[in-house]
Amino acid sequence: MQHLVPLDNLVAALSRLPGIGRRTAERMAMALVQDSKGLMRILANALLEADDEIASCERCGNVTLSAVNPCELCTRHRRDAHILCVVESPADIMKIEESGGFQGRYHALMGRLSPMHGTGAADLRVDQLLARIADEKITEVLIALGTDVESDATASYLKEILSTREVRVSRIAFGLPSGSAIEYSDAATLAKAISGRQKFD
Amino acid sequence: MQHLVPLDNLVAALSRLPGIGRRTAERMAMALVQDSKGLMRILANALLEADDEIASCERCGNVTLSAVNPCELCTRHRRDAHILCVVESPADIMKIEESGGFQGRYHALMGRLSPMHGTGAADLRVDQLLARIADEKITEVLIALGTDVESDATASYLKEILSTREVRVSRIAFGLPSGSAIEYSDAATLAKAISGRQKFD
Ligand SMILES: [Zn+2]
Ligand SMILES: [Zn+2]
Repeated sequence: MQHLVPLDNLVAALSRLPGIGRRTAERMAMALVQDSKGLMRILANALLEADDEIASCERCGNVTLSAVNPCELCTRHRRDAHILCVVESPADIMKIEESGGFQGRYHALMGRLSPMHGTGAADLRVDQLLARIADEKITEVLIALGTDVESDATASYLKEILSTREVRVSRIAFGLPSGSAIEYSDAATLAKAISGRQKFD
Repeated sequence: MQHLVPLDNLVAALSRLPGIGRRTAERMAMALVQDSKGLMRILANALLEADDEIASCERCGNVTLSAVNPCELCTRHRRDAHILCVVESPADIMKIEESGGFQGRYHALMGRLSPMHGTGAADLRVDQLLARIADEKITEVLIALGTDVESDATASYLKEILSTREVRVSRIAFGLPSGSAIEYSDAATLAKAISGRQKFD
């Protein structure tokens, strides 16, 4: 690449997107600066708008409009308010919603236990989960975490914590291929894993 | 995806990047709105900065700083000012510079003939090329276009046009695999193709 500072900065910012390597970021940056249809400004404005108008649901952690908080999934009456599906992230909520396999409420931990990345229990939304179980009279917690080592450790940690509460703890069935993440599963597999959930013990 | 307008707009803008499908754009958008390190604003600012500070070289079409126009490659004294390498885009200039196989000046056409995409000769920087050949006393035009059908047609068109001028027309050697584009070739192949260039007839 030619060394133009604004171009280098753009490549650096694009490289921070998930799954985008240096080479792809360079190609994107070149396409952007060569584009004649104002794409740089369109994308910049979309980013600024999203940054302004999208917030984290104060209750479940899902993405929501800043003006709609708690989010729609937290307040919709038709949903079962006494079962909480615990996921890692809002992206997982979307995947499960697409599967159509779940009609309760959600709770996003915003991560998983990862000694390697320095993420401990205090970094996850566990206290909020315990508070919700009491406040919202939750009868079942459905753990929808993946089957990789870190997600598994997180699930075990939650089971441990929740064993002292008056709540049924279940986990989505292992229909997923070993080592996979919720986010990359297809809708049918996920729906099946949810309907076939087992008591967690 | 959940239907939050700002999120939909972000996905739409990201989908316009080259090589980014709908699914990847959705994943990127979710990663951006979940990011806690200000990446949306960093990326937006990098885009706005690039949009403000990067321009097209008025002479060769290369990307350059708005404050450095004509670009550095057009004005550097150590380069041979009498041989012009004609390419499709600034990205191709970068690839050839990386190969180290060329030390003259460049001229980017900003496209290639493509009846399918409605790109005709008038949409390319051909008049500017002819003007430069006269003004800059160019003795050789090296055509560095790929081997796909459209690039080939563009090369033939240039040869035709240039046959009436007092200039040697050459073309990079076909060391490239058939059907490939300049942009995706490796440096060694490109350098070889340039050194082995043939008179174009
Ligand atoms: Zn919510
Ligand atoms: Zn230039």
